[in-house]
Amino acid sequence: MQGRYKALWLNEDDLLEVIDQTKLPFSYETKVLKTTDEIVAAIKDMTVRGAGVIGSVAAFGIYVACREVQSYEKLKEKAKLIRQSRPTAVNLMWAVDKMMKFLKDSKDLVKDSKAYAIKLNDEEALESQKIASFGADIIEKILKNKNKTSINILTHCNAGWLAVIDEGTALAPIYEAQRRGIDVHVWVDETRPRNQGASLTAWELTQSGVKHTIIADNTGGHLMQIGDVDMVITGADRVSANGDVANKIGTYLKALAANDNDIPFYVAIPTSTFDFDIKDGMKDIPIELRSEDEVKYMRGVDEDGVVREVLITPKNSRAINYGFDVTPARLITGLITNKGVCEAGFENIKEKFEKNI
Amino acid sequence: MQGRYKALWLNEDDLLEVIDQTKLPFSYETKVLKTTDEIVAAIKDMTVRGAGVIGSVAAFGIYVACREVQSYEKLKEKAKLIRQSRPTAVNLMWAVDKMMKFLKDSKDLVKDSKAYAIKLNDEEALESQKIASFGADIIEKILKNKNKTSINILTHCNAGWLAVIDEGTALAPIYEAQRRGIDVHVWVDETRPRNQGASLTAWELTQSGVKHTIIADNTGGHLMQIGDVDMVITGADRVSANGDVANKIGTYLKALAANDNDIPFYVAIPTSTFDFDIKDGMKDIPIELRSEDEVKYMRGVDEDGVVREVLITPKNSRAINYGFDVTPARLITGLITNKGVCEAGFENIKEKFEKNI
Repeated sequence: MQGRYKALWLNEDDLLEVIDQTKLPFSYETKVLKTTDEIVAAIKDMTVRGAGVIGSVAAFGIYVACREVQSYEKLKEKAKLIRQSRPTAVNLMWAVDKMMKFLKDSKDLVKDSKAYAIKLNDEEALESQKIASFGADIIEKILKNKNKTSINILTHCNAGWLAVIDEGTALAPIYEAQRRGIDVHVWVDETRPRNQGASLTAWELTQSGVKHTIIADNTGGHLMQIGDVDMVITGADRVSANGDVANKIGTYLKALAANDNDIPFYVAIPTSTFDFDIKDGMKDIPIELRSEDEVKYMRGVDEDGVVREVLITPKNSRAINYGFDVTPARLITGLITNKGVCEAGFENIKEKFEKNI
Repeated sequence: MQGRYKALWLNEDDLLEVIDQTKLPFSYETKVLKTTDEIVAAIKDMTVRGAGVIGSVAAFGIYVACREVQSYEKLKEKAKLIRQSRPTAVNLMWAVDKMMKFLKDSKDLVKDSKAYAIKLNDEEALESQKIASFGADIIEKILKNKNKTSINILTHCNAGWLAVIDEGTALAPIYEAQRRGIDVHVWVDETRPRNQGASLTAWELTQSGVKHTIIADNTGGHLMQIGDVDMVITGADRVSANGDVANKIGTYLKALAANDNDIPFYVAIPTSTFDFDIKDGMKDIPIELRSEDEVKYMRGVDEDGVVREVLITPKNSRAINYGFDVTPARLITGLITNKGVCEAGFENIKEKFEKNI
C-alpha cells in the first residue's frame, strides 16, 4: 500500500479539499470547499458521508467559516448552519461544539481554528490506528488458532477511510493486517439499498490493493455455511450501554448467520460511538426511516460511461427503507475500540470504559 | 381479483403464447412460440422462468415440435434440443420425459401431444390450488391465535403465477387468503442479484390487487424484530429427504431471523420438489454458481422510459454469485404441499409421503 488514503485534506492553498463520494465508484473527483455554504451543501448532498468524515469536515468547516467572519458572534451563526446540515449526526454536533468551545476567547480565529481542527483530526486518526492494531491482533489470533496463513473477512457497508479518519473502523484492522504481511481477502456485502459496499468499500479496497469480492447481501449466510468466512467485522453508528449495536440495515442478519456457524463477529468503533444514555439498545435506539426512492431507483454507469439512475421496480409499488437495524449484544463476539477489545454486554462495557469515558 | 392470471396459454390459433418475463416489470409483452427453436430460445434467455412454468413450456414445446415433424424418431431429436435448453431444470426433464413416454405409440402426434400437455398443465394447476388451500388454512389459524384480522407475510424471490402454474407455490396461499376475505399485506424481498422480488413478485401482486411493499433483502430481520411480520412463506427449488430446503440465495438468512423472533417459516412446494435421493440437503444439494455480471450490472428503466443496464460496482472489482442456499430443516416450521402440511425433518416427511410418492 502506497501510504494512507484520505477522504479530506488541506490543500496547498490551505483550503479544505474532499473526495466527492457521490461520484464513486464511477469517477474520482475532488471538491474544494471554500465557504460555509459549500460545507453545508457537501454534507447535505452526501459529497462527504460517514460519521468520522462528517465530523472532520464540520471541524474544518468552522475553520472555513472563520475565514469569512470577523467576530465570534458572527461565527456562531455560521456554526448553526453547519450544525443544521445533518441534524442526526452525533459526530457533527460533537465536532462543532468542541471547535466553538475552544475558539471562545481566541484572538486569532483563523489561525486557532485551523490548528484545533488539525488537532481533532489527528486525535481521530490515532483512534483509528489503535483500532487497526487491536483488530489486527485478533486477526493474527484467529489465524494462529486455525493454523492458517490467509483470512476471509466479511464486512457490511462502508467503515473505511472514506467514512472515518484515518483508515476507518471496520476496515482499519484489515489494512493493518495487510501491512503485517497477512494474506487478507474481504467479502464485501453490496449493502442495499444505497450500495455503500459495492460502490465505496469495493472502490476503497481497490485503491489500497486489498483483495476483495463483492457479494449480494443475500450471499453471506451461504458463504459462512460452506466455511468461506473466518470472521466478520462491521462498524456501528451507535452502541448502547448494554452492547446492542445499531449499524446499517442487514447487519443483524449477518450476525445471526455468524452465530449459527460459530464465526466470530466483531464490531469496530471509537469509544465515542457508545451512547451510555441508552441502556437497552433493542428497545430504545431510534431507527431512521429513509426515502423509498433509495430502494426503487438504482444509480450506475451505462455502456457509454454516462451515470444514470434507473427505476428497478413497478412504478406504483411502494417500498419501505429503514436505514439501520439493531444487533443484540448476545450475537456479538467483541467490540474492537481504540481503548481495547471487550465483550459486548453491560457489565463488560461498564467495567472497561466507565472510568475512561 | 378478476379471475386467475397466467404465464402461458394456448391462444385462439392454438399456438403457445407466453408473457415475456425479461420485460417485466417495465412493460407487458407476450411472445408466440411457434417452433422448437423459439421454445428453446425462450427457455435459454429467460423469456420464461420458474420451475413449473418451464416444465409447462417444455410440455407444450413437445406439442409445438409435433407440428414440425412427421415421426416419433424426428420428434426425439426435437425433444433433445428442448431438454438441453436448461440442463439443471428438473421440471423440464420431467415434463419432456412424460410427454415422450405418452406419445411413444401415438397415431396422431399433434392431437395427442396437445391433449396430454393440457392434462399435465391441469394437474399442476390442481397442485397449486391444493397448496393455496392448505396454506390459507394456516394463515387463518395464525390470525385466530393472534386474534388479528390482517396479516403481514414476508416472501423471498418469486414463487407465484409467473413461476408455477396456476397461482404458484409461496404466493398461492396469499391469493387464496385474499379470496377468503382476509386482509393480506406482503413484504416483498427484492431478491438480489436478479431482483425477482422487486420486478416479478411486485408486478404479479400489483396485477392481482394484493397489497405489498418492496424491501431491500437486508430489511426483513428488522421488520421481524419490531413485530411487523406474522409469517414467512417461500418456495423451494429442491427439498431433500431430511427436509433441508434449497431456495433462492438469502432464504437461509430470513429463516434464521424468523427463528430468532418466533415467527412461523413455511415453505410451499408441490411434492415433486422432494428429492428423496438426497438424504442430507446441507451436504449434498449442489449450489449453482452464476455469472458475476448479475451482481455487477442492474437493469432498470430511465426517466425517458428506456430500459438500460448499468454497472453498479467498480469495473475491476470481482463478484461472486451463488444462485441458492440451503436452509436446514430445523429452521422450518412446516412444508405446505399439495398433499398436506408436514414438519420438515426426515421422519415426518417419510411418514407422510413415502407411500404417496
